[in-house]
Amino acid sequence: MKSYPYPLLKPPSFAWDRSAAPAEPKVNEWIETLEVAHADQTDWSAVDATILGIPLSRSSISASAASENPDAMRRAWKYFTTYNLDHDVDLSEMRVVDLGDVRQHVTDIARCHQNIREAMQAMRTHHPQVLPVMMGGDHSITAMLIKGYKDAHPHDRVGILQLDTHFDLRDLADNGPSNGTPVRNLIESGTVKGEDVHNIGLHGFFNARSLKTYADEVGVCYTTLREARKQGVAQTVKEALESLSQRVDAIYLTVDMDVLDSSYGPGVPASTPGGMSSDELFEAVHVAGLCYKVKAMDMVCLDPFKDRGEATVKTAVHVMLSFLTGYKQRLK
Amino acid sequence: MKSYPYPLLKPPSFAWDRSAAPAEPKVNEWIETLEVAHADQTDWSAVDATILGIPLSRSSISASAASENPDAMRRAWKYFTTYNLDHDVDLSEMRVVDLGDVRQHVTDIARCHQNIREAMQAMRTHHPQVLPVMMGGDHSITAMLIKGYKDAHPHDRVGILQLDTHFDLRDLADNGPSNGTPVRNLIESGTVKGEDVHNIGLHGFFNARSLKTYADEVGVCYTTLREARKQGVAQTVKEALESLSQRVDAIYLTVDMDVLDSSYGPGVPASTPGGMSSDELFEAVHVAGLCYKVKAMDMVCLDPFKDRGEATVKTAVHVMLSFLTGYKQRLK
Amino acid sequence: MKSYPYPLLKPPSFAWDRSAAPAEPKVNEWIETLEVAHADQTDWSAVDATILGIPLSRSSISASAASENPDAMRRAWKYFTTYNLDHDVDLSEMRVVDLGDVRQHVTDIARCHQNIREAMQAMRTHHPQVLPVMMGGDHSITAMLIKGYKDAHPHDRVGILQLDTHFDLRDLADNGPSNGTPVRNLIESGTVKGEDVHNIGLHGFFNARSLKTYADEVGVCYTTLREARKQGVAQTVKEALESLSQRVDAIYLTVDMDVLDSSYGPGVPASTPGGMSSDELFEAVHVAGLCYKVKAMDMVCLDPFKDRGEATVKTAVHVMLSFLTGYKQRLK
Amino acid sequence: MKSYPYPLLKPPSFAWDRSAAPAEPKVNEWIETLEVAHADQTDWSAVDATILGIPLSRSSISASAASENPDAMRRAWKYFTTYNLDHDVDLSEMRVVDLGDVRQHVTDIARCHQNIREAMQAMRTHHPQVLPVMMGGDHSITAMLIKGYKDAHPHDRVGILQLDTHFDLRDLADNGPSNGTPVRNLIESGTVKGEDVHNIGLHGFFNARSLKTYADEVGVCYTTLREARKQGVAQTVKEALESLSQRVDAIYLTVDMDVLDSSYGPGVPASTPGGMSSDELFEAVHVAGLCYKVKAMDMVCLDPFKDRGEATVKTAVHVMLSFLTGYKQRLK
Amino acid sequence: MKSYPYPLLKPPSFAWDRSAAPAEPKVNEWIETLEVAHADQTDWSAVDATILGIPLSRSSISASAASENPDAMRRAWKYFTTYNLDHDVDLSEMRVVDLGDVRQHVTDIARCHQNIREAMQAMRTHHPQVLPVMMGGDHSITAMLIKGYKDAHPHDRVGILQLDTHFDLRDLADNGPSNGTPVRNLIESGTVKGEDVHNIGLHGFFNARSLKTYADEVGVCYTTLREARKQGVAQTVKEALESLSQRVDAIYLTVDMDVLDSSYGPGVPASTPGGMSSDELFEAVHVAGLCYKVKAMDMVCLDPFKDRGEATVKTAVHVMLSFLTGYKQRLK
Amino acid sequence: MKSYPYPLLKPPSFAWDRSAAPAEPKVNEWIETLEVAHADQTDWSAVDATILGIPLSRSSISASAASENPDAMRRAWKYFTTYNLDHDVDLSEMRVVDLGDVRQHVTDIARCHQNIREAMQAMRTHHPQVLPVMMGGDHSITAMLIKGYKDAHPHDRVGILQLDTHFDLRDLADNGPSNGTPVRNLIESGTVKGEDVHNIGLHGFFNARSLKTYADEVGVCYTTLREARKQGVAQTVKEALESLSQRVDAIYLTVDMDVLDSSYGPGVPASTPGGMSSDELFEAVHVAGLCYKVKAMDMVCLDPFKDRGEATVKTAVHVMLSFLTGYKQRLK
Repeated sequence: MKSYPYPLLKPPSFAWDRSAAPAEPKVNEWIETLEVAHADQTDWSAVDATILGIPLSRSSISASAASENPDAMRRAWKYFTTYNLDHDVDLSEMRVVDLGDVRQHVTDIARCHQNIREAMQAMRTHHPQVLPVMMGGDHSITAMLIKGYKDAHPHDRVGILQLDTHFDLRDLADNGPSNGTPVRNLIESGTVKGEDVHNIGLHGFFNARSLKTYADEVGVCYTTLREARKQGVAQTVKEALESLSQRVDAIYLTVDMDVLDSSYGPGVPASTPGGMSSDELFEAVHVAGLCYKVKAMDMVCLDPFKDRGEATVKTAVHVMLSFLTGYKQRLK
Repeated sequence: MKSYPYPLLKPPSFAWDRSAAPAEPKVNEWIETLEVAHADQTDWSAVDATILGIPLSRSSISASAASENPDAMRRAWKYFTTYNLDHDVDLSEMRVVDLGDVRQHVTDIARCHQNIREAMQAMRTHHPQVLPVMMGGDHSITAMLIKGYKDAHPHDRVGILQLDTHFDLRDLADNGPSNGTPVRNLIESGTVKGEDVHNIGLHGFFNARSLKTYADEVGVCYTTLREARKQGVAQTVKEALESLSQRVDAIYLTVDMDVLDSSYGPGVPASTPGGMSSDELFEAVHVAGLCYKVKAMDMVCLDPFKDRGEATVKTAVHVMLSFLTGYKQRLK
Repeated sequence: MKSYPYPLLKPPSFAWDRSAAPAEPKVNEWIETLEVAHADQTDWSAVDATILGIPLSRSSISASAASENPDAMRRAWKYFTTYNLDHDVDLSEMRVVDLGDVRQHVTDIARCHQNIREAMQAMRTHHPQVLPVMMGGDHSITAMLIKGYKDAHPHDRVGILQLDTHFDLRDLADNGPSNGTPVRNLIESGTVKGEDVHNIGLHGFFNARSLKTYADEVGVCYTTLREARKQGVAQTVKEALESLSQRVDAIYLTVDMDVLDSSYGPGVPASTPGGMSSDELFEAVHVAGLCYKVKAMDMVCLDPFKDRGEATVKTAVHVMLSFLTGYKQRLK
Repeated sequence: MKSYPYPLLKPPSFAWDRSAAPAEPKVNEWIETLEVAHADQTDWSAVDATILGIPLSRSSISASAASENPDAMRRAWKYFTTYNLDHDVDLSEMRVVDLGDVRQHVTDIARCHQNIREAMQAMRTHHPQVLPVMMGGDHSITAMLIKGYKDAHPHDRVGILQLDTHFDLRDLADNGPSNGTPVRNLIESGTVKGEDVHNIGLHGFFNARSLKTYADEVGVCYTTLREARKQGVAQTVKEALESLSQRVDAIYLTVDMDVLDSSYGPGVPASTPGGMSSDELFEAVHVAGLCYKVKAMDMVCLDPFKDRGEATVKTAVHVMLSFLTGYKQRLK
Repeated sequence: MKSYPYPLLKPPSFAWDRSAAPAEPKVNEWIETLEVAHADQTDWSAVDATILGIPLSRSSISASAASENPDAMRRAWKYFTTYNLDHDVDLSEMRVVDLGDVRQHVTDIARCHQNIREAMQAMRTHHPQVLPVMMGGDHSITAMLIKGYKDAHPHDRVGILQLDTHFDLRDLADNGPSNGTPVRNLIESGTVKGEDVHNIGLHGFFNARSLKTYADEVGVCYTTLREARKQGVAQTVKEALESLSQRVDAIYLTVDMDVLDSSYGPGVPASTPGGMSSDELFEAVHVAGLCYKVKAMDMVCLDPFKDRGEATVKTAVHVMLSFLTGYKQRLK
Repeated sequence: MKSYPYPLLKPPSFAWDRSAAPAEPKVNEWIETLEVAHADQTDWSAVDATILGIPLSRSSISASAASENPDAMRRAWKYFTTYNLDHDVDLSEMRVVDLGDVRQHVTDIARCHQNIREAMQAMRTHHPQVLPVMMGGDHSITAMLIKGYKDAHPHDRVGILQLDTHFDLRDLADNGPSNGTPVRNLIESGTVKGEDVHNIGLHGFFNARSLKTYADEVGVCYTTLREARKQGVAQTVKEALESLSQRVDAIYLTVDMDVLDSSYGPGVPASTPGGMSSDELFEAVHVAGLCYKVKAMDMVCLDPFKDRGEATVKTAVHVMLSFLTGYKQRLK
């Protein structure tokens, strides 16, 4: 096992006490924290998934503290058991390692983005069989993560399943690689083909018409939430994944938490009335977890400072666990 | 004096800068503000709808800051594009003018009510082809607005589609024309016939039995939310409008925001558990917007001081835009 | 009529003014407060139901102010009429008496529990035809209340319909009779058979796997929320009650308010994403109210200090009133 | 088209209607907004002060929405008259122009900083007799503003009066020109001499010892709040200004709002227990306004998203007005 | 004893349980509630003070729920003992009766004002030796209360000690007898002479210059907070009372809670930075309670919906109790 | 070194990452966490102080989450440097070890109290030269801690300096050893003499008269806040300590955080208007830290669930650090 690129990572600022973890752990007692000093000795072949925090939201168009989300999610792990009663799956039968956070710089956003890209490349290079799960941060990080993925797997055709209220197809010429641009960034840079993106969750008055026009021109697939609900969101996701699976080598799942209705996602500044319920979202990501081509996922744009208590942060943790439930079922 | 370095500066954003409105405006850049000094020169024949604020809530039974709602909605316009992705409709192809607010008096509620009535009469007299949209204020204003409508169109038979958790049929003898009385006020004054009122959204323990008895006596139509959901709220609204359309000349849509479930309408003091979801309400008003007989609408009883952030205020703006989407489709 | 066991009870700290209650009362004007000084003269044969506050939450695993819920619910009665429009039922045709609260001790939880048990036994002994409705407090009280019920009716086989996100089957050996243990407490003490418990509402990652294993071993019935929704929660409840009714003499309905989704139950610290909506819960308890074998009910684990305004407290009052609606329909 | 019934209508209030400003205006009716299209015609010789918003907080070490402060302060102007009763001074006898905001870039912080520097240089070049007042933004902007000042007045020796809980002397090598570095930035770049900086407000455990050591090495003057209170904060400020005035040509007043005690400054994330009261701060800036050498001032690090209502934003507006009161007294 | 004017009063909507009041009562167990049915039998000669709620805030310029303050204060009585440790005074040695609230009308503000005036007249006629304490409501009520006082005592010269951030001298011609006008109302109606009003607490930018000019013209006395603090607020109040006592027969103390600094009065919408501390206010009203000429007092403009918890409501109760402490000391 | 009594302790649920602590640590990087597994090897002679969490608030009369305070304070350590600028003292020159929390039981409060007592005895027995600092919890713990102290030092005469709004002299016969009783508990059990208790901070209406009578009977010393302010709180504390020092062997400092004014202590449910400022409290505990006889201290009754952000929790940390500053100065 080659050494791990420590310089880009820093451990979480706090660690849960796992010494006394019982036979039936809580999620915080189950997920391991990478001990940086001994990272070389980690047996990555026994690890099923890694978790990585990306505490960057300086690149957000609106002021955001989504940078605080990775630690907020870690603190909320304690509210969850590892056992999914709905599917009779126990996540603790998998090994999941929390790598900590990608190092960020206060005043140089380009360097932040580069660090994120390199961290993803490193993960995919050093332990390509391990599933990476990323806790953002704002949506600008997705472009960097997928570029990093391509750096490690240059010959893979990569598709995207996007659960989002927005297209995220804004023009980079306006304000650089902000959180409004990741999908366009990937298409324009040739990283991903327009037709290999499928967005589910669009609705209402939250996208300029020109973005739809652009989406149509570059062939981005999308199903509005109103349409998706006709046969159920989960079934719509399933069909989109089957279609994507036929033409790409890997699917990256990106969950913009603003896809939630504002009553379900009070901690997401950009959540809107008319969005998804928590329940619909859990089912959707569970289906994605089951799909063999899904190789990575992220959750973005949750600002814990705006949350009502920790309600939305808990929802995000549940999204992660529902996804991992599908992944666990896939592994068996 | 040398010229000032404009490129680095931009004006404060909250004085909605329409001069720089892009090709694809936000709602605040699209809706025009009436310039009072030049109101005479306005070409009303090119205007499709007007927006009017009615900042009155002294007439509310419970203490309310619904008077602050018109400005709160205006501030929240900036969160919306003019493009409705669900229906592929661009509202910016219509012209909508914000007339400002009806003047109110601090200690003379009767004068406030009279001003409201006269403002509606004036609008209907000066530009009867323009659709008026009113942002309340509490529900007492609806009686005044419909009376003003009748003042301008004395020979029109006017019906009401009411989305509301309450009958609003309280006795005026108790406390005058408060927000609990508008529908009774209109029936007792002979402005509207009981049978020309259809209320959709009643449920639970929020109306005294005597009000139901009165409603039955005067022939008010109503469908409880529980019944409406059996075939869907939107379909129920559609059928109610078709029935009303056969017997009245004009239908006035009044949306008491307390029809929302309290999880969807935290900013509505009278919202209740068991009420409508945002999604159901958007569909309902969209259907109403499509109906040719619907000639005016209002939204009432939202107190932005009680809101969670601006969640409910945004929902109210979405209600207005969903209604205008139907109206736009009707125009074409 | 035998005298009432005053020593265990204390009146509510405040009382609504009922002197001027109109023909159509609000709930606070309808529910009578037991006048302790004249309790001997109460004609219990004319009383249909009693309400009892159990202000105990020191026994909660997590810090909780559920002890404040009984008074919070009393204060929120004023928001409700007695008339249920959905079912055309007027609760004011029943007589309901608020007995006040069971006395609690600050530092002796065992004594608190004993008081609760004795209060239930006393109620069932002195006026067994009256339906008791209990406002908790945390879920530890349910074990005491059902034991008190059995003390009064030792030959009755008692079943439980539990609406809950959790099994509440934790081991008492760990931390005594806390709010995580009531169902196990009842099973291990032989008060209730495992097979006579039916839990509806479980979901997600909120129960350790060992609890499911234990539930299976002792035969506890359960339907996850995901399964229940396939045919509707109300229908699932109806079938569970029919099944229980065939083998038990009395069914005790316990509503852990944490069964609500956290968007619908912001005042329930243990509410979770993916839970029930208010509407589903109202329908479920209405169905339970209709069932002849249901002889008592409680609502627990609502912490009004954590509520958003009084939204969840109002929801709890609505739960009580929806249940009483079914009960009223049963009586006729 | 017949005329419209103006008497009943008034324009929306938040587009500050200055046309109808009464003889005694509110602050929002008094401060003029620069009309960019006609900026060339402005007679700057009649202007006493300009106000400039600097909506930058991406450069903040901790996540901050101080970028929203300029607009928040503008919205809060309406709560203030122009008349200072304590000093019998009417600010409306001065002309103050709001220039709007310096344009910012979403992902290029260096460009943001350059824009700020150039804006200050331009102001000082085009109308050097006008006092500039800046509403931040985070404290990183102060370095840019003073550099811009020096660009315009390269031969002026500039001093700083800093009201702050922190030294702001962190090493730029760590994370670039963030909000922890402005004073060091100015000293290391040779813009300001260490001895020409006087900080009043330091206290408690909020500065690393090495920063004090650095301050001592480069000769920065400071008076802890505890010392300042012995003779009064205002008197301490007065003496510091007199001392600075003897050796510099111009004094720049920078008010880090975190100097407030956290009970007085709930909207300042970095405010601390043991800080200044509002009253002490108003007196301090009033004294600074009176000092002839004070040529510019800024207020920074207030995050209106964290405020309790608008309490701290109003306090910031009062700081600005108290400073302008002194300036007005100086002018006469 | 003549009968009491019941029609204008209604009892509080709830009453504290006094049946079990211990030897050492809490304030809620001490203050008696007038039993309207037996009001005729009350021995008023044994009563020292009455408390009256005035739940009117429709007359407030800004939207306000100060109407909810009387009940909010009653609920907060439970937090206080009757024993003042600072002065070794036990209030429970006095008899204080809560008369309930003056009836209000929803849509007729003039009738509300008339009811208030008549209620004061009735109190002063039926039991003139009893001290009335009023819980507002907004400040418009003070004009009505003092007019009612004069109706009962037409030959008394009445003075006012006003603790307030504002003059409350706005022109009634603008918007009628709102909360901005009470002092002017009294002066213009000849009820009180300008020179018999002394305002302590003015500061900052919260009064138009014209109001100061008017105050000077009609001879209103005032001491700014800044001036008052030089010798202490309590001493300033003492001297003002001594001066007033020499020329008037009775002094009415009116406490506009907006005199508090906004950190001390978060529940007062008009509280400002730079205002009084709670401590200064308690000392001030204690001094007023000691003054023999002070015959009545009110507290106004506290909106409990805006409070942080019940912090400001508790402060208002403390104001009332501190005043009553002085009154008790005066009685002995 | 004898072994440490592990059974009673559990480590904090999380630990700060100290691996990368810089030369100038934050408080969270400075305070060491006891590694339970290697506690035997700890060289206690090099340790200056220990910190112990006491997460018990079930014994509180009012519902309280003060049990969450120890972890809340630990999380807030990160906001503080170890360097006290006011006194030029660097705490990092001392060694302070966080022992974790005393184990608590959910339903057996007596066992909780016994654990606390034994933990204190163990600390004083195993490393008597180390200063213990306790983070409560409610005030009932103080009686147990001082009893544990006496168990270890049976021949020491122990005095108490109490900073508190209340006497805490309630009768244990009423509800057991709750948070209203600790001082009486200690006096009645003969642990501490009444005359060896000095309370500073009493004021207003927050103690029954009988408690003052009891205090006088048993000789408890007290200085009201009003009296203390005449010469300054710090000076009053100094004199009280000097007086106590003459007659006792050890002084225990107990800080009930409710001594703070409610504007300074929003997170203390029992804080009151008219209480201490943060600044006064910091000075008071600093003086206590300097006193050689002060051998232990605790901070109690802070409920972080009620805090405004973390304002009060930060204040509590500052109290601890201000006390340790004095202790550090004493050591040198």
